Amino acid sequence: MSDIIVKPSILPGFMELTPADQILFNKMMDTIRKNYEKFGFLPIDTPVIEKSEVLLAKGGGETEKQVYRIESKSTDMSMRFDLTVPLARYVSQYYSKLEFPFRRYQIGKVYRGERNQKGRFREFYQCDIDIIGNGSLSIINDAEIPSLIYSTFKELGFDAFTIKINIRKMLKGFFESLNIEDSAEVLRVIDKLDKIGLEAVEKELVDLGLADDVIGSINRLVGIGGTNSQIIQSLKELNIDNELFNEGLEELSTVVKYIQLFEVPEENFKIALSIVRGLDYYTGTVYETFLDDYPSLGAICSGGRYEDLAAYYTKQKLPGVGMSIGLTRLFYQLREANIISATDSSLTKALIIPMNEYVEQSVEVANVLRKEEIHTQVYLESGKMGKKFNYADKLNIPYVIVVGEEEVKTGLYSFRDMKTGEQKSISIEDIISCLK
Amino acid sequence: MSDIIVKPSILPGFMELTPADQILFNKMMDTIRKNYEKFGFLPIDTPVIEKSEVLLAKGGGETEKQVYRIESKSTDMSMRFDLTVPLARYVSQYYSKLEFPFRRYQIGKVYRGERNQKGRFREFYQCDIDIIGNGSLSIINDAEIPSLIYSTFKELGFDAFTIKINIRKMLKGFFESLNIEDSAEVLRVIDKLDKIGLEAVEKELVDLGLADDVIGSINRLVGIGGTNSQIIQSLKELNIDNELFNEGLEELSTVVKYIQLFEVPEENFKIALSIVRGLDYYTGTVYETFLDDYPSLGAICSGGRYEDLAAYYTKQKLPGVGMSIGLTRLFYQLREANIISATDSSLTKALIIPMNEYVEQSVEVANVLRKEEIHTQVYLESGKMGKKFNYADKLNIPYVIVVGEEEVKTGLYSFRDMKTGEQKSISIEDIISCLK
Repeated sequence: MSDIIVKPSILPGFMELTPADQILFNKMMDTIRKNYEKFGFLPIDTPVIEKSEVLLAKGGGETEKQVYRIESKSTDMSMRFDLTVPLARYVSQYYSKLEFPFRRYQIGKVYRGERNQKGRFREFYQCDIDIIGNGSLSIINDAEIPSLIYSTFKELGFDAFTIKINIRKMLKGFFESLNIEDSAEVLRVIDKLDKIGLEAVEKELVDLGLADDVIGSINRLVGIGGTNSQIIQSLKELNIDNELFNEGLEELSTVVKYIQLFEVPEENFKIALSIVRGLDYYTGTVYETFLDDYPSLGAICSGGRYEDLAAYYTKQKLPGVGMSIGLTRLFYQLREANIISATDSSLTKALIIPMNEYVEQSVEVANVLRKEEIHTQVYLESGKMGKKFNYADKLNIPYVIVVGEEEVKTGLYSFRDMKTGEQKSISIEDIISCLK
Repeated sequence: MSDIIVKPSILPGFMELTPADQILFNKMMDTIRKNYEKFGFLPIDTPVIEKSEVLLAKGGGETEKQVYRIESKSTDMSMRFDLTVPLARYVSQYYSKLEFPFRRYQIGKVYRGERNQKGRFREFYQCDIDIIGNGSLSIINDAEIPSLIYSTFKELGFDAFTIKINIRKMLKGFFESLNIEDSAEVLRVIDKLDKIGLEAVEKELVDLGLADDVIGSINRLVGIGGTNSQIIQSLKELNIDNELFNEGLEELSTVVKYIQLFEVPEENFKIALSIVRGLDYYTGTVYETFLDDYPSLGAICSGGRYEDLAAYYTKQKLPGVGMSIGLTRLFYQLREANIISATDSSLTKALIIPMNEYVEQSVEVANVLRKEEIHTQVYLESGKMGKKFNYADKLNIPYVIVVGEEEVKTGLYSFRDMKTGEQKSISIEDIISCLK
């Protein structure tokens, strides 16, 4: 036994919750998982540590600087910084064992040595789904992803949210038609529209050296408004003679049509021509989802279509479409904004409090309830009744059953609803039906 | 796009599963979690990376050598090697916010740089429960743990398993009564009884320099057999005049009595006086669970009672009792021994296959089924019917629904049971009731 006491604390940038908050967090994670499974996605669970040469095959950039490397004399190992690179490696590695289209979900922690900042996490959960095709993948999959986003956020308790969609290749074709060479730079600027406004975007486009008429055309495009059908109509009426643009527009029409067929209400998805997503591997459809009443939270779920998942690991062409929910950040933001709160969260349905010598009979009651799959705890420690009731109260356990002489004699147990304070003497059968 | 292709592979010592195996693994994990929650345990989720000074407060030994450290110029960080040290830190850190007895479960990955060896993992899941008292903790908790072990393994599908229990302080008192000074060494030898047999144990005890009559006494103790009540009776009849021994024996009687009250069948738990558990922090009750028909698997679940959880982090005395299931190793062993197999595992209940132009109608059927919480996938790619049926077959999806002209006209869908091959034309309502 050491005399030195180490101060118990965790590193900055790591989220750790009290049990009540953890229950809430887990409920959200369970809801996400349940919805992913309902849509036919299969689970995988890749290692947190992988070979650095695999994880960093793409190399360079911010990612590499943020990666946590493991100290080792013999092997260069790193911690995963997302779930997409491991997916690419997984699909390449088990290619011959998998059935395509391969629908996988993965919910797990990823690691990034981010700068220490409020709301930024160095360890956080990502909840990813992807549909990977073998050589090709139907565009209808791009419409099913919003349907799953809708189903998930609905069940998470949200009503007012908008899934914004766009087709990246359509924009690219549009820029081609304007003879803009570095379309990536222009996309980067346009992506900021919602954040910095039209005027600032225009200024940045001028700084890029674009001519006035070109900027005018871009403005007209991103300024297109109306319902989804109206936007598609307006895009058609632009009569742009560019193959990529028209291919993208055709895809957009199909995706919108099928999103409707998948019964996503019109108010929950919206073509947004300025949404382009920063990640450069998206080529087609892109999604960003926002809570209408809390725009400052930013996108709470994002994704898109990519041409080729795993070019670093295999010569197989593997197009895909997917999306990710950053659950740790989402949970943190929702709690900070008081949209969710753990005051009611409990997993245990009933606390059994034995009076004096009635521990044995309390255990018997617990056996009966647990056989009925009712989450039950017996308070086994000694102490005053008030302390025991207080324990149930503090843990948000909704019901308390007292077991004492009277109860054992009559077979009627004191059953207290901790929220209303109401107490009655009822049989074990009645308790079971109350708790179920 | 790079030309260089990195071979897609993972590091040795890391388990990664195909989706079918992953489904099986997750089902086991869900069963464990469900049982933990049924007994009133609350979830926590501590960071995988912690300060090295916290994780290694105890220091020294094999543990420190096996720890994965993170490369960093500024902070000494390590990956957790178990869930007990993080629990100790957690309880100390949030002491004032927690309610005691604090029942927590944690299911998560831990990391050890083990020597590379078949069946040894460097990343593996531990599924831990612990009950932590504030200053004291009733001995009845020690009887509830076996009840939870029983409930869990029953639901995992096992019948023939034995939870072996012992009380470490009873043995310690016994050795005191024999004037053995280094009882830890003797315990270490006795622990090997099941593996190396009585004769080899006797030889090792001789090597420790114990006198013949002392060895004779030890042999008599560990040789005590019979039913649990008979063993307790025999222990009482030893009439040993040692306080610790008698305190331990009293505890053993209480624990056995309550294990029976918790309705663990007599054939599933057994006093085993040679079980002592290697970990030196156990002081009272110890448990090891074995599959009767597969003794070579070793203990599949272990735990015990400790006097003081968190002496390195707090001056609060925090006694506890708990147990852990090493799920990764257990899963690996069960699969290797063909006790479990993934041939039937699927999450998706129905695959909808559209004929020709009937994708829209297929999506509509999927909407209906998903609203009923039936896990459904639509096969959206083009291709021959045989290929699509084969897809369902390979993924173990039990039912296929074909949507074509005839189906849309009549409202009766071809519904095929993929196991029996039986196919019938039925309404969507009948499909729902078949699938539920």
